[in-house]
Amino acid sequence: MIRQTSAGIYAWLPLGWRVLQKVAQIVREEQDRAGAQEMLMPTIQSADLWKQSGRYEAYGKEMLRITDRHDREMLYGPTNEEMITDIFKTFVKSYKDLPKNLYHIQWKFRDEIRPRFGLMRGREFLMKDNYSFDLDVEGAKLSYRRMFLAYLRTFARMGIKAIPMRADTGPIGGDLSHEFIILAETGESQVFCDRRWLELDVLAEAPAPDSDLKEFFDRYTSIYAATEEMHDAAKAPADLVTARGIEVGHIFYFGKKYSQPMEAIVAGPDGQPVTVEMGSYGIGVSRVVAAIIEASHDEQGIIWPEPVAPFKLAIVNLKVDDAECSRVCEDLYARLSGAKVEVLYDDRNERPGAKFADMDLIGVPWQLTVGPRGLKAGVVELKRRATGEKFELSVEDALARVMA
Amino acid sequence: MIRQTSAGIYAWLPLGWRVLQKVAQIVREEQDRAGAQEMLMPTIQSADLWKQSGRYEAYGKEMLRITDRHDREMLYGPTNEEMITDIFKTFVKSYKDLPKNLYHIQWKFRDEIRPRFGLMRGREFLMKDNYSFDLDVEGAKLSYRRMFLAYLRTFARMGIKAIPMRADTGPIGGDLSHEFIILAETGESQVFCDRRWLELDVLAEAPAPDSDLKEFFDRYTSIYAATEEMHDAAKAPADLVTARGIEVGHIFYFGKKYSQPMEAIVAGPDGQPVTVEMGSYGIGVSRVVAAIIEASHDEQGIIWPEPVAPFKLAIVNLKVDDAECSRVCEDLYARLSGAKVEVLYDDRNERPGAKFADMDLIGVPWQLTVGPRGLKAGVVELKRRATGEKFELSVEDALARVMA
Repeated sequence: MIRQTSAGIYAWLPLGWRVLQKVAQIVREEQDRAGAQEMLMPTIQSADLWKQSGRYEAYGKEMLRITDRHDREMLYGPTNEEMITDIFKTFVKSYKDLPKNLYHIQWKFRDEIRPRFGLMRGREFLMKDNYSFDLDVEGAKLSYRRMFLAYLRTFARMGIKAIPMRADTGPIGGDLSHEFIILAETGESQVFCDRRWLELDVLAEAPAPDSDLKEFFDRYTSIYAATEEMHDAAKAPADLVTARGIEVGHIFYFGKKYSQPMEAIVAGPDGQPVTVEMGSYGIGVSRVVAAIIEASHDEQGIIWPEPVAPFKLAIVNLKVDDAECSRVCEDLYARLSGAKVEVLYDDRNERPGAKFADMDLIGVPWQLTVGPRGLKAGVVELKRRATGEKFELSVEDALARVMA
Repeated sequence: MIRQTSAGIYAWLPLGWRVLQKVAQIVREEQDRAGAQEMLMPTIQSADLWKQSGRYEAYGKEMLRITDRHDREMLYGPTNEEMITDIFKTFVKSYKDLPKNLYHIQWKFRDEIRPRFGLMRGREFLMKDNYSFDLDVEGAKLSYRRMFLAYLRTFARMGIKAIPMRADTGPIGGDLSHEFIILAETGESQVFCDRRWLELDVLAEAPAPDSDLKEFFDRYTSIYAATEEMHDAAKAPADLVTARGIEVGHIFYFGKKYSQPMEAIVAGPDGQPVTVEMGSYGIGVSRVVAAIIEASHDEQGIIWPEPVAPFKLAIVNLKVDDAECSRVCEDLYARLSGAKVEVLYDDRNERPGAKFADMDLIGVPWQLTVGPRGLKAGVVELKRRATGEKFELSVEDALARVMA
């Protein structure tokens, strides 16, 4: 799926790349749905803007600093608050163009001293970050609620449960912030949440993104959930879940922290200058892939939720030198591909045991096994990776089942 | 569309980003069609592999060299021959897994001494590069022909004509190479080609990618086309076009140049070790966007070919405070969006002249203008950007026309 090419830096091989793309595409669709506009900022930034915001020194050694051939100070962006604020103020001059919310999905670099947990804390990582610009605090808080909803929807659509937890704002700054955390035994930190979180069906309950979202936000933030540093045993409910968690997203409202020093100012309705209110919102796209693996696997390998699986189905040909087996497999492959079902065909000349083990390891949600003995009895075997359930079905019934 | 954030480094604003994505998507579809598999390599590489191939010193100052916090030598990849060869040899051990063709679409960096021509010679640029691995020369040449065809199709689908010209292999090395060049007055170099190139309909003539492509390749390479350095007046046809050109793609067959020093060896059919035959193939995805603008514009602005236009159609509301105008525009917008037509709605409160000028500048292929006078007569105006043709049509006829 992936291969480390140097410390904390990974190449995504074709299977891993498919998962990464699916995760990114769900992120993209939910950003678009929430009214954010996609753009793309470069990976390499000039140090100048960071000096203006005061973060060039503050960021420390995690920032990968680069000197180009003309001895200019550059850096590999770990985040983009400065750059987006600069772009914004160049193009947006009037309150009429607000609210504005711009996002991009781009590689970032943080020179971690000791890259750990594989992809989880890689140095080069893919992140969706976006930035909202509003005329006033009320508008900025609505933008924040929109992203809160978009994030809940995003992770729910991936088939994983990410719980928003009130969080410290850290080096980004600001006074309102939530971390979105996936529960997994190998998680990096201790988290606490009301057991009700485990039952919530976000997609069924999510309101339309263009409503004011107040009731929704208040209800969801009233159900207890906290990271270790924010946890308050006195406020915790009786039915508390204590678990390990992995952070996959983080949203911030920070007001004028960047717009003030960088002078992101628009003309208000009365013609007077207004310094805009900002928020920023991040999803670790490559980190989500790692977090899903941590949260969803067994001893045999990965169990991909269907929306992010590299393929929906694998066809396992048990005897590639059997003409009838191969004919049936190729026919199935052609019909499924034609119906836009993403299918992997395992026609390697290997032992059945090795093939099954590989398919379990890869974690494709459905495995369709075709062998000579089954074919004589008119059946193929359909196996569901998540539960191990097996069904003996006719070819047509199996097709109907996976195309449903 | 884009904004320079530092010398030779650009941010893609929402309109420009849409074009970049469309170009990338066409590239992707044609790579998939030709049997290449997508993956993704990181931007930051360790210097070690480049020392092994001998290119670390050879590459000179164009390579952006970086030292991380542990004083390890890193670099921002300008290309990926070394990394892909290393990945290949880790995973592929047998002739049975050949041929293999892997591609990625990733940001590259070349620290040009004097970044010029805007995007055309940017320092950070998006490139599709792929790498073919074959057991023997005959297989490698077939891989080369497949990419030759894929490139012709790729550019033709974008609505532009890119002419393959026999080229020097330069620092990549090898003995067979073609540059794909778009003709444009502002092109960086002089090129020469048979006038027949201007009439060829590649998409109509392209054979299936799984045939041997010999006849096709021989026919297309027999029609004269040469860069200045390869031009031979004695061999040129009578009806020769002399023009300026912009390179947007480059394909190379270079045999064992990297596989030998890096020991990319598989077991052949007889069990004996075979050093694989390689080729590499690049398309400057961000450069294509710049080249299209150079090749397709007039004094009013850009004329996007429809397949890569940021939007297919712009609705221009001439009088936003007229209730009927706005109602018709919003209805049109909803119906077109519902039919998946990409539509931009200009409801700014600006003078009509300024709106028309902006739409011409942006270069959306179709402009649909809705004004109170026209509505009274039951018509809207549909304008084709490329030709300036204008049609007065009923709303329904206009819809039918642009949805066709």
